[in-house]
Amino acid sequence: MTLKSADPAFLDALSARLPADTLRRPDVRYLEEPRGRYSGQAAAVALPRNTQEVAEIIQAAHVGCVGVVPYGGGTGLVGGQVMPEGATPILLSLERMRKIRAVYPQENVLIAEAGAVLAEVQAAATDAGRLFPLSLAAEGTAQIGGNLSTNAGGVNVLRYGNARDLCLGLEAVLPTGEIWHGLSRLRKDNTGYDLKNLLIGAEGTLGVITAAALKLSPIPANAGTAIFTVRDPAAAVELLAMVRDAVGEGVSAFELIHRQGLDFLAEKLPELRQPFDPRPEWCVLIELGLGKGQDAEDALADLFGHAMEAELAEDGVIAQSEAQRQSLWAVREHIPEANRLIGSVSSHDISVPISRIPKFIPAGWKAISELDSSLRINCFGHLGDGNLHYNVFPGAGRSRAEYDALRGEVKRIIHDLVYDYGGSMSAEHGIGRMKVGDLERYGDPMKLAAMRAIKQALDPHGIMNPGAVMR
Amino acid sequence: MTLKSADPAFLDALSARLPADTLRRPDVRYLEEPRGRYSGQAAAVALPRNTQEVAEIIQAAHVGCVGVVPYGGGTGLVGGQVMPEGATPILLSLERMRKIRAVYPQENVLIAEAGAVLAEVQAAATDAGRLFPLSLAAEGTAQIGGNLSTNAGGVNVLRYGNARDLCLGLEAVLPTGEIWHGLSRLRKDNTGYDLKNLLIGAEGTLGVITAAALKLSPIPANAGTAIFTVRDPAAAVELLAMVRDAVGEGVSAFELIHRQGLDFLAEKLPELRQPFDPRPEWCVLIELGLGKGQDAEDALADLFGHAMEAELAEDGVIAQSEAQRQSLWAVREHIPEANRLIGSVSSHDISVPISRIPKFIPAGWKAISELDSSLRINCFGHLGDGNLHYNVFPGAGRSRAEYDALRGEVKRIIHDLVYDYGGSMSAEHGIGRMKVGDLERYGDPMKLAAMRAIKQALDPHGIMNPGAVMR
Repeated sequence: MTLKSADPAFLDALSARLPADTLRRPDVRYLEEPRGRYSGQAAAVALPRNTQEVAEIIQAAHVGCVGVVPYGGGTGLVGGQVMPEGATPILLSLERMRKIRAVYPQENVLIAEAGAVLAEVQAAATDAGRLFPLSLAAEGTAQIGGNLSTNAGGVNVLRYGNARDLCLGLEAVLPTGEIWHGLSRLRKDNTGYDLKNLLIGAEGTLGVITAAALKLSPIPANAGTAIFTVRDPAAAVELLAMVRDAVGEGVSAFELIHRQGLDFLAEKLPELRQPFDPRPEWCVLIELGLGKGQDAEDALADLFGHAMEAELAEDGVIAQSEAQRQSLWAVREHIPEANRLIGSVSSHDISVPISRIPKFIPAGWKAISELDSSLRINCFGHLGDGNLHYNVFPGAGRSRAEYDALRGEVKRIIHDLVYDYGGSMSAEHGIGRMKVGDLERYGDPMKLAAMRAIKQALDPHGIMNPGAVMR
Repeated sequence: MTLKSADPAFLDALSARLPADTLRRPDVRYLEEPRGRYSGQAAAVALPRNTQEVAEIIQAAHVGCVGVVPYGGGTGLVGGQVMPEGATPILLSLERMRKIRAVYPQENVLIAEAGAVLAEVQAAATDAGRLFPLSLAAEGTAQIGGNLSTNAGGVNVLRYGNARDLCLGLEAVLPTGEIWHGLSRLRKDNTGYDLKNLLIGAEGTLGVITAAALKLSPIPANAGTAIFTVRDPAAAVELLAMVRDAVGEGVSAFELIHRQGLDFLAEKLPELRQPFDPRPEWCVLIELGLGKGQDAEDALADLFGHAMEAELAEDGVIAQSEAQRQSLWAVREHIPEANRLIGSVSSHDISVPISRIPKFIPAGWKAISELDSSLRINCFGHLGDGNLHYNVFPGAGRSRAEYDALRGEVKRIIHDLVYDYGGSMSAEHGIGRMKVGDLERYGDPMKLAAMRAIKQALDPHGIMNPGAVMR
């Protein structure tokens, strides 16, 4: 089915079905994305107040064969929220649907509308004495509907899982404009296909999530943070196993940091206090969140002793106060800012099976240095999830523009290597429009065929987020 | 598309494509199911040795429009593994594909072929110093492929989740006979629709799982078991929150037991030692699995003290030895056997949001006693998951046959009430063929429409497990 542009006749007819001020001309902010690679186009932005209005909008678009681009907080990094070409779509923003509909502390469940900002969801959980563990840099802007549609990751995946793992049920409008009432609060419900997980991570191409039943967790009673230096990534992987053996699920984060990141910090953010002098080749940040009656600092001290004995750790800093904990986390959290100030040639959101990371990291170094020995690599990230930010930078004193001609080859070399190692070229950001070609290149052909069949079955007119995930 | 019976011409042609002895006449054991409600029919049972042979079989069935009924360990309780009517299908058993292909202790991952028996998977994990936490009564017979196809539950769901939550990747043959190579060991991989979770819980109607990458966990260093008496289910729900606040993820099981179950045990299994005399109206079994340096007995003693102070618990037994732990678990584990010896009028595998359980339980009692005041209810199960076995029994000294005329009404009353309370009529057993009508009655119509569209898209000839889940 060929999509049509949202023309004045379509917009007038849709407007007549909706309360005043539901359709607007789109501000420019709806047509941009954070990396500035795409400019969107849209005939209007629809701002419904409730699920029924969302259904009216989608149904009209289905009948009229008009594309609908769901727009959450606009923080996605792969262009899923902007449509630069093709028949002019409408944007659909659920920013007016941001209620916390209910909190059930006894059940560890919270029901939020899709337009609720992630930080608001976290705060509502905290108010109920619970933790909503999804946490990521854009949490002050990103909306929970977008987090679910993209299966967001973040810093707590090791312990609590991705957005997918934090959702019990959904309310959604399917591409024909019909409402699926699936806001289950049940932990066990084996009644048919898993439509919930199909919509989560579909990036708005199979419907629009309008509300979600979210899993909460207890707030860990005793948290502790440490940074240990390690010989190499192999030692870091062994240390992770040791930590897990000692505290089980009590390890909340396990982040790998390379000297290149510490060097960038020293160069660009010299006021930031670093834990080691001289700066070590590799270190790991460990966060524990333990229950009542357990002492996280003692547990970290025990771990450090065992790690020294096993020759896995060489030096270490264990935070003795909340201020010190924040100071250690600041090292990890400012690496992306230092990276931005340096300016990468190419950034890669990759994952690799954890046991293969020790070989993958040097293999990538070797391949990139063979391409151009001046390139520098800052490799850091969520080692506990096998998710690395494997980012390639210009040589010292040189600019990223000097490497424009190499960028495509750098990306190809890293992604090819990732697949040789059984990994993924999109660990947490999704496909959007930026990685559609990568998915065609690296994806399993049978999975892609199944995806196309499912898309055609649920969205026969192809109106939902056209061009995202698949052509 | 109308299905055809697997006639001699089809079987001969298929045989010619496969090694000798791959197709056999089906033993009677393949045509029975544990509850004896259905007798299956099949022209042959196919026993492939590898994924390529599975693909050959499915492809031939797709081209020939012949039904394929996947048969795992045969332990399903809803008739998903037997097809009593319609064009004669072939059965597909993966019992020859039972290899543990690989174990990655550092990654907490194990790759098993679908025909591996669950107990074999558990043992392979234990050999690697890890825990595969899926655990259920049929684990000595059930196969991991069937566990995943039905999204099995069991006793450790509270802590570790359902089968779905224990799977990282799948290899599967889709209904057209093509192989999806999706055996990812990645914790984070956002590259397109979640085909894995679509196949898990689809009960063999969308393809055949041939192998799975499974998540392992550390073995908890210190386990402890206790039974506390509680005033009523409301106190049990409050106690669960208290336990979670104290030990976080350290609570592995939280099982509710009613006096009716203890009475049945006393009547039918009098040699079994019971923890309390007189038998209490309600009690809960609590299992903790804590990390190194934590004492589970001490934690349970602390909990008991706090629960007494809060007037949630009245009496308690904390196991002081492994023998005592087993003795407490034996009480819980023998209740189903006592139930079988009594003989239920109707059994219900239900779930309800946890906070509504305190009102649901007496509402069910009231409704059933209004139907027939002689009926007895034994309500017990996985309170931590909101999953109850809410089983209705004959009056004392009467037989189940006396209530044959009431059975349908009993089931209807319970299931209607479950849906009034936002629950599910199949918490862990699935739909199979037994609950197809219930799914039509209680399922969301839009979800059912989406399921039909997905089924048609992926299995256009309707060959996979015809008549299961949907008509």
